[in-house]
Amino acid sequence: MQFELLKTDKESSARAGIIHTDHGDIHTPIFMPVGTQASVKAVHQSELESIIKAQIILGNTYHLFLRPGNEILNRVGGLHSFMNWKKPILTDSGGYQVFSLSARRKVKAEGVYFSSHIDGSKHLFTPESVVDTQRILGSDIMMALDECPAYPCTKPAARKSLEITKAWLERGIAHFKNTEPLYGHDQIFVPIAQGSIYDDLRIESLQFNGQFKTPVQAIGGLSVGEPAEDLYRLVHLSTQHMSVDNARYLMGVGTPANILECISAGIDMFDCVLPSRNARHGILFTTQGIMNIRNKKWKDDFKPIDEGIQCPTSNNHSKAYLRHLFVSGEILGMQIATLQNLSFYLHLVSQAREMIFIDKFQEWKNAILQVINQRL
Amino acid sequence: MQFELLKTDKESSARAGIIHTDHGDIHTPIFMPVGTQASVKAVHQSELESIIKAQIILGNTYHLFLRPGNEILNRVGGLHSFMNWKKPILTDSGGYQVFSLSARRKVKAEGVYFSSHIDGSKHLFTPESVVDTQRILGSDIMMALDECPAYPCTKPAARKSLEITKAWLERGIAHFKNTEPLYGHDQIFVPIAQGSIYDDLRIESLQFNGQFKTPVQAIGGLSVGEPAEDLYRLVHLSTQHMSVDNARYLMGVGTPANILECISAGIDMFDCVLPSRNARHGILFTTQGIMNIRNKKWKDDFKPIDEGIQCPTSNNHSKAYLRHLFVSGEILGMQIATLQNLSFYLHLVSQAREMIFIDKFQEWKNAILQVINQRL
Repeated sequence: MQFELLKTDKESSARAGIIHTDHGDIHTPIFMPVGTQASVKAVHQSELESIIKAQIILGNTYHLFLRPGNEILNRVGGLHSFMNWKKPILTDSGGYQVFSLSARRKVKAEGVYFSSHIDGSKHLFTPESVVDTQRILGSDIMMALDECPAYPCTKPAARKSLEITKAWLERGIAHFKNTEPLYGHDQIFVPIAQGSIYDDLRIESLQFNGQFKTPVQAIGGLSVGEPAEDLYRLVHLSTQHMSVDNARYLMGVGTPANILECISAGIDMFDCVLPSRNARHGILFTTQGIMNIRNKKWKDDFKPIDEGIQCPTSNNHSKAYLRHLFVSGEILGMQIATLQNLSFYLHLVSQAREMIFIDKFQEWKNAILQVINQRL
Repeated sequence: MQFELLKTDKESSARAGIIHTDHGDIHTPIFMPVGTQASVKAVHQSELESIIKAQIILGNTYHLFLRPGNEILNRVGGLHSFMNWKKPILTDSGGYQVFSLSARRKVKAEGVYFSSHIDGSKHLFTPESVVDTQRILGSDIMMALDECPAYPCTKPAARKSLEITKAWLERGIAHFKNTEPLYGHDQIFVPIAQGSIYDDLRIESLQFNGQFKTPVQAIGGLSVGEPAEDLYRLVHLSTQHMSVDNARYLMGVGTPANILECISAGIDMFDCVLPSRNARHGILFTTQGIMNIRNKKWKDDFKPIDEGIQCPTSNNHSKAYLRHLFVSGEILGMQIATLQNLSFYLHLVSQAREMIFIDKFQEWKNAILQVINQRL
């Protein structure tokens, strides 16, 4: 696997590139829809490919380890085969979900002990075991086990946490090198920078991670409750300490505005549950702005949901119809809204990429933010 | 609108025909997916058309009258326009839902008073008002307001109820003749036979309804809890008292076995929530038999859900994957299962039609029932 930098914007740090994988190319900057439990909620894989135009999706190791579990995933030949998805997949290490979902977790030097949020069963994730699980998942891009400190976090606690993350990374890298892909396609292993909101810890973490020269480098532990200014400051700081030769992945971010700002800072890859989760609650991101489709004002708006993107359901169904589906509790409402939000996110990063190539990214970004940030 | 009888099976009363409507032809025998609130739950309209191959769908007047309501539906130009569905639509009169869903209903000579199950608001449906509402809905096939007696029902009560249904039909027919379609396409009005499980009442009702010579004639009040023998006996009896020149619609039926048996009795049209509702609970109807996909036995069955029908999700996804989606509470499970069940139902009636044309219906039916009735 290899990242190819094609173009850097003249007025910002925004970049356009390609990540070459055995499951196809990924054109960056890219947004990756989240398929937590082997499904991007409420959309078919065929819709992900043909309507949303997803180039890569995420799977969550924590969830998949618990259900359907490694035995099933191994026997079926990995996650691509299990869910019938032929394009690239990135899996996280499971660490983040252990910290956010599971009960009675305990971090020790060897790894993290936790109880399943489903049935209370006890498990241990180690830097090595999550490599093994991701080998079984067969994801194209595997993530290192890290510890993600909550926000706010004192500096001594952030320092201590970073030491764990660094030690785990070394063990993960070693185990990654000692193991082979199971299904014949290449997999890479990606370190995650931590350090809470402390500039020096962030820089230290990035420099430590950079020595492994992995084709993708990730920034974790942001968008966990800190103010937007901290997010932007730390992302701009971080990309300055990351090699231009690697793709840069900002984990768990964010709103359309967050994404455009972080693209301008030189981020290449994003994932977030926001567009799909908000869709299921009737909050739509559109080329005209943000709307709560349950609002009474849409009850007789018979114009299309969004004509600005290529999404047949959004082009052909009215706001009034979608509102009716939500008010009536129809599943189809969540389906149509998810197609809208994810199509819009992929449209947005695709537009950003085009603008980077013609050196109009900053101008376009400043103009479009006025529109897409509006509350309709 | 016109029903064209093309073929009657040599060994049974099964028929193949065409209902010509302004929104296209309907090839009978046909199953009509139920789109209660302007949505066939969990499937896109494009999937109804291209995957399920629905030729006509149902809307429920009771639900649509309450939400989004006549004003919205009138302004948007009817249900076809509102939900962006270009093929035929049949709407019921709302009577059945008034009896099954609403609180404090009261039948009087003028109509039925009821309280909305949504907000308790009070309403009156009359034989005339449901014609007006269905004119606004713009359904190709409109149903008369009837009273559907619960099962069991004493004969005096069934007699009394039938008198109301007959009186309401005369008023409905008169109002239908005095009103015009609102959107330029033809609409027909269909009487419903009642009479509970009493042969003489059923015959009387059918003879009364037959005098109006409508292109479609319906049988209501069955599959409401009576034994299957009663259902089959009454359907076979009923079709003997219905003109061969009209399409015969058996309301609210049923299982795949019910449908094949009633096709052999000469029924042309069916609707039922069973395939879509069961799908959402993980009960699948397939060409191999009936399965509860949540069952542990499917956890490592990596073979396709159903290869016997043309449905990409059922052809491409495994039983193990679909089980995982249900066990994990993923919406996509309901989507895939609904596509399976409705595709299977439409496949079944399409196969039945082919067999009727080549005079092999009975032989095929007896053979296939052994398979599709199996519990897998």
